[in-house]
Amino acid sequence: MNIQLALDRMTIPEAIRMARTVREHVDWIEVGTSLIKEFGMDSVTALKREFPEKTVVADMKTFDNARYEFELCFKAGADVATVMGAAPMVTVEACMDTAAKFGRTAMIDLLHTSEEQKAALYRFTDAILCYHVSKDEQEQAGQALQSGGWAGGTKAPAGMKTAIAGGIKLASLPGFMAFDPHVIIVGSAITKADDPREEAFLFRNVINKQKEIQAL
Amino acid sequence: MNIQLALDRMTIPEAIRMARTVREHVDWIEVGTSLIKEFGMDSVTALKREFPEKTVVADMKTFDNARYEFELCFKAGADVATVMGAAPMVTVEACMDTAAKFGRTAMIDLLHTSEEQKAALYRFTDAILCYHVSKDEQEQAGQALQSGGWAGGTKAPAGMKTAIAGGIKLASLPGFMAFDPHVIIVGSAITKADDPREEAFLFRNVINKQKEIQAL
Repeated sequence: MNIQLALDRMTIPEAIRMARTVREHVDWIEVGTSLIKEFGMDSVTALKREFPEKTVVADMKTFDNARYEFELCFKAGADVATVMGAAPMVTVEACMDTAAKFGRTAMIDLLHTSEEQKAALYRFTDAILCYHVSKDEQEQAGQALQSGGWAGGTKAPAGMKTAIAGGIKLASLPGFMAFDPHVIIVGSAITKADDPREEAFLFRNVINKQKEIQAL
Repeated sequence: MNIQLALDRMTIPEAIRMARTVREHVDWIEVGTSLIKEFGMDSVTALKREFPEKTVVADMKTFDNARYEFELCFKAGADVATVMGAAPMVTVEACMDTAAKFGRTAMIDLLHTSEEQKAALYRFTDAILCYHVSKDEQEQAGQALQSGGWAGGTKAPAGMKTAIAGGIKLASLPGFMAFDPHVIIVGSAITKADDPREEAFLFRNVINKQKEIQAL
């Protein structure tokens, strides 16, 4: 179970400083969509250069122009890039192909993806499926990812890697543990904490405790 | 009826050179998603600085984080920014609010948007609705926007501004004229032409001729 630190709404130097602060407690580093759209691929290049040992995720949210966009990311050093599950199927397919060609990984963001389309996406068994409640849904509609609901609707096939994102806090984290996601994506709960390092350490502790319980 | 020149898969200097070449024959200049994701907001700033008299469209394809992303665009000088119709409704609403606050315009990209969601979007009467066949659908699935089909399904209310995009060529342009779109988006048909300036002139001519016919 990996912790992915999502870096959004900040400059590249701020992102680097934040990732350095919590480095030892997180596994994956996400270059947020806002960094990519504000600063371009320099944001991905800079984060991978600073953290070569981490899995760097470019949150591209690709919806079209799949090969071109995924190549940009991978050439900039990203290990994982994201595509929207709501995009045309040919786009998701082209992302999968490009990831395979580069020996990297595609994460399919299921935000606002219909149940019918989700079911069709489950054939991409090399992808990571990301169950996601968006920033706008959290901020404007007061929603957050529900521990019981994130895998609701059509169920991902057993063995497929999943990620969860959307307002996950330390208090709600234990509720997600039973689902054993491959990646837990955390943004502002860590980056906006009074002490981000301590907060990341606490997230790590909850996950480690859960692993101990599972191993009993 | 405006011609929007879509600039994609090129550097910022190349985009500026291309737009200069066809300047007198196009009305709107689109900073393509690929430029934004590769070079960030510098791409929008540069194009607006070079072409202050043009309507500059930032093809952000926003799917989340609406206020932040639209503010980035408008502060960089964009007159229009795009949001995906397939995004959560709260995201589209926040884009509309932000555009209104800045006195700018939101274009809603209807690519892969369900008929149900399209119908719900028709209440945003200040937006421009963009009927769109994507690059990937064109390149991977051999599709192009059909003159009879682009406004198919739920119909936009009379009086709403529309845009059309997706492999429009000089030969297919006359078929779209009867729908009287506010914006005709053309990319590679002009930028990849042997003589982009001449090609843009020919597009302009077809539109002018149509206007003459309508005025009779």
